[in-house]
Amino acid sequence: MVDIRAELKDFAAAFNEELCQYFPMPQGPEKRVVEAMEYSVLNGGKRIRPFLVKETAKLFDVPLKQSIRVGAALEMLHVYSLIHDDLPAMDNDDLRRGKPTCHKQFDEATAILAGDALLTYAFEILSHKNTHPDAKIRCQLVQLLAQAAGGFRGMVAGQMLDLLAENMAATQNSEELIYKIEEMKTGRLLRFAIEAGAVLGEADLDAHNALMLYARKIGLTFQISDDILDVEGDQALVGKTLHKDEAQNKLTFVALYGLQGAKDLARKLTDEAKEALAIFGSKAQTLADLAEFIISRNK
Amino acid sequence: MVDIRAELKDFAAAFNEELCQYFPMPQGPEKRVVEAMEYSVLNGGKRIRPFLVKETAKLFDVPLKQSIRVGAALEMLHVYSLIHDDLPAMDNDDLRRGKPTCHKQFDEATAILAGDALLTYAFEILSHKNTHPDAKIRCQLVQLLAQAAGGFRGMVAGQMLDLLAENMAATQNSEELIYKIEEMKTGRLLRFAIEAGAVLGEADLDAHNALMLYARKIGLTFQISDDILDVEGDQALVGKTLHKDEAQNKLTFVALYGLQGAKDLARKLTDEAKEALAIFGSKAQTLADLAEFIISRNK
Repeated sequence: MVDIRAELKDFAAAFNEELCQYFPMPQGPEKRVVEAMEYSVLNGGKRIRPFLVKETAKLFDVPLKQSIRVGAALEMLHVYSLIHDDLPAMDNDDLRRGKPTCHKQFDEATAILAGDALLTYAFEILSHKNTHPDAKIRCQLVQLLAQAAGGFRGMVAGQMLDLLAENMAATQNSEELIYKIEEMKTGRLLRFAIEAGAVLGEADLDAHNALMLYARKIGLTFQISDDILDVEGDQALVGKTLHKDEAQNKLTFVALYGLQGAKDLARKLTDEAKEALAIFGSKAQTLADLAEFIISRNK
Repeated sequence: MVDIRAELKDFAAAFNEELCQYFPMPQGPEKRVVEAMEYSVLNGGKRIRPFLVKETAKLFDVPLKQSIRVGAALEMLHVYSLIHDDLPAMDNDDLRRGKPTCHKQFDEATAILAGDALLTYAFEILSHKNTHPDAKIRCQLVQLLAQAAGGFRGMVAGQMLDLLAENMAATQNSEELIYKIEEMKTGRLLRFAIEAGAVLGEADLDAHNALMLYARKIGLTFQISDDILDVEGDQALVGKTLHKDEAQNKLTFVALYGLQGAKDLARKLTDEAKEALAIFGSKAQTLADLAEFIISRNK
């Protein structure tokens, strides 16, 4: 547990250097949109999703170059979702990781376009031959990411539900609803990270199922710890406006189970996530450590 | 020329029936975003892009089912760009094809999400095995569409430049700038339509080059006739707010060359587009007719 923080930090530094190469600047004034993309992507994220791709792929001895490219695509997509989520018409956030959000730093139109371009770029990266020599694998990754991010049962559907669920905290279907939002809004991208590692590694069914179980457990833990951070977090560390959930009467795991109940659930899920990794033995130690990191993160 | 209007109309009707099947409704309240996607896609477009995919693919005897799927993906992407373009932070349009724009019919947040989901869906459709049995072809289509639509030299870069170019009509670099905007903002998606047909048909280099020349010429004509329509069009037919370009002091081909000059250029380009098709003989008659349709359209 001492090590995983350092390992994540080292990975994020190396990954950021890699990411810098993804933004060749156009000559003309249209470079503004690429500047906005780069600003938002290189804004100090923890890079948990790309780390998950890398660590899962490593279980199957996938070349690092491949898993880093898939991680880059996933991070582009994740950052697009943050940019659009922060817009005035959506969550209307001014701060993200301690810096002005994209529409505050640039303007709304540029932020909409930068998000659109990052989403598009994710698929350009995935489908490029450098990502994997086998086009079937590349197509499978494009399929999975598009489904995970899309409007039917993916991230966008989760965002829609989340917006509609505001001020619905007191209804009787709260429990079902919050799990559904979590699964679609945050769970599916985390699951893609892990599934992508399995796809790159052409994992067999047992390995695949074990990893999907792990993904489900840490995805839920991730959301629960986000809700806990909103209540207990240190704003300077977290780098975004806190205590918004209660003010907006938002449906959260803390609202549903109370602070202690939420903490207990996160603990139980983390233990289950680690158990799911048993079939990989000591090879999966970093993934187990990461589950502990997620429950104990303070930002 | 009498026939092409009827042919386009018949195609649009058949294509719309096909499109209806692309929107299975979720059960929960998140279906709102799918309703917004469907509302915008089934909003009476002329379907010129999917028609171009179909007609180009037909030169190479590609199965109709394949070109229709690629056309559907392209139309999803085209409609996403219209939804985001119409947003208050962008062009702020209330009307599109005579009906309320997506954010007017629903709301801004839903419109942002519906656009995001349509863009994502385009790549899901392209990468699906029903689009083409060969994954290499599918990956190539994903690559080409992502590049055509993206923020570096694609559609989003063109939109950025277009936004920045407002009130720049009088500068000395106007001519260079307007061609650059046209090429990126509208030209590249039209070019993709034609290139996709060539990729599906595994066209040889000569055929490919001839089609790319045709694409460039009709793409320019398309933009010029749009600019002419803004000046001369019948608002009831066109179905969107006209006479906006002059009011906004927008850089257009009419502002640059005058109305007659713009018309003369469009005529010249249309003749050149038809000449480019010579190597296909009578097989390309519909594509030639389509070039005439583009220059003579009144909506």
